[in-house]
Amino acid sequence: MARIVVDVMLRKEIHDPQGEAIASAAHRLGFGQVLGVRQGKRFEVELSGPADEAALARVAELAGELLANQVIEEFTLHES
Amino acid sequence: MARIVVDVMLRKEIHDPQGEAIASAAHRLGFGQVLGVRQGKRFEVELSGPADEAALARVAELAGELLANQVIEEFTLHES
Repeated sequence: MARIVVDVMLRKEIHDPQGEAIASAAHRLGFGQVLGVRQGKRFEVELSGPADEAALARVAELAGELLANQVIEEFTLHES
Repeated sequence: MARIVVDVMLRKEIHDPQGEAIASAAHRLGFGQVLGVRQGKRFEVELSGPADEAALARVAELAGELLANQVIEEFTLHES
């Protein structure tokens, strides 16, 4: 059994109001050294079979179809 | 400048209907080898100063106060 992690983040050029709200709240709470926050999603996908190249390719396909909106988001995969 | 990543996932014993919906959709789309999906959040926190132990400790504090609901979620930190 393999576990592949898919990280989905907004593209750099896309405004992230959630992250900005968190950065503001951090400042109010006294975490003054926080320069910025970006919020994204993390998916843990469990697969039958090994975490080989074929499995990674399938999960990349799944991520592109189902987990990320590639107009505004980009994703990266790694083994867990 | 340091970038610390905070991964927030539901605790194992907490039911994850979003992840289950994604796993079902994956099956419908022909990704039969998907055994399960868990959905969580990923935060990229940019800090002034180095990513030393003090910075990690501050971000852990921030995560516990602001980013994770520790009743149902757990978080891990790593340098980006």
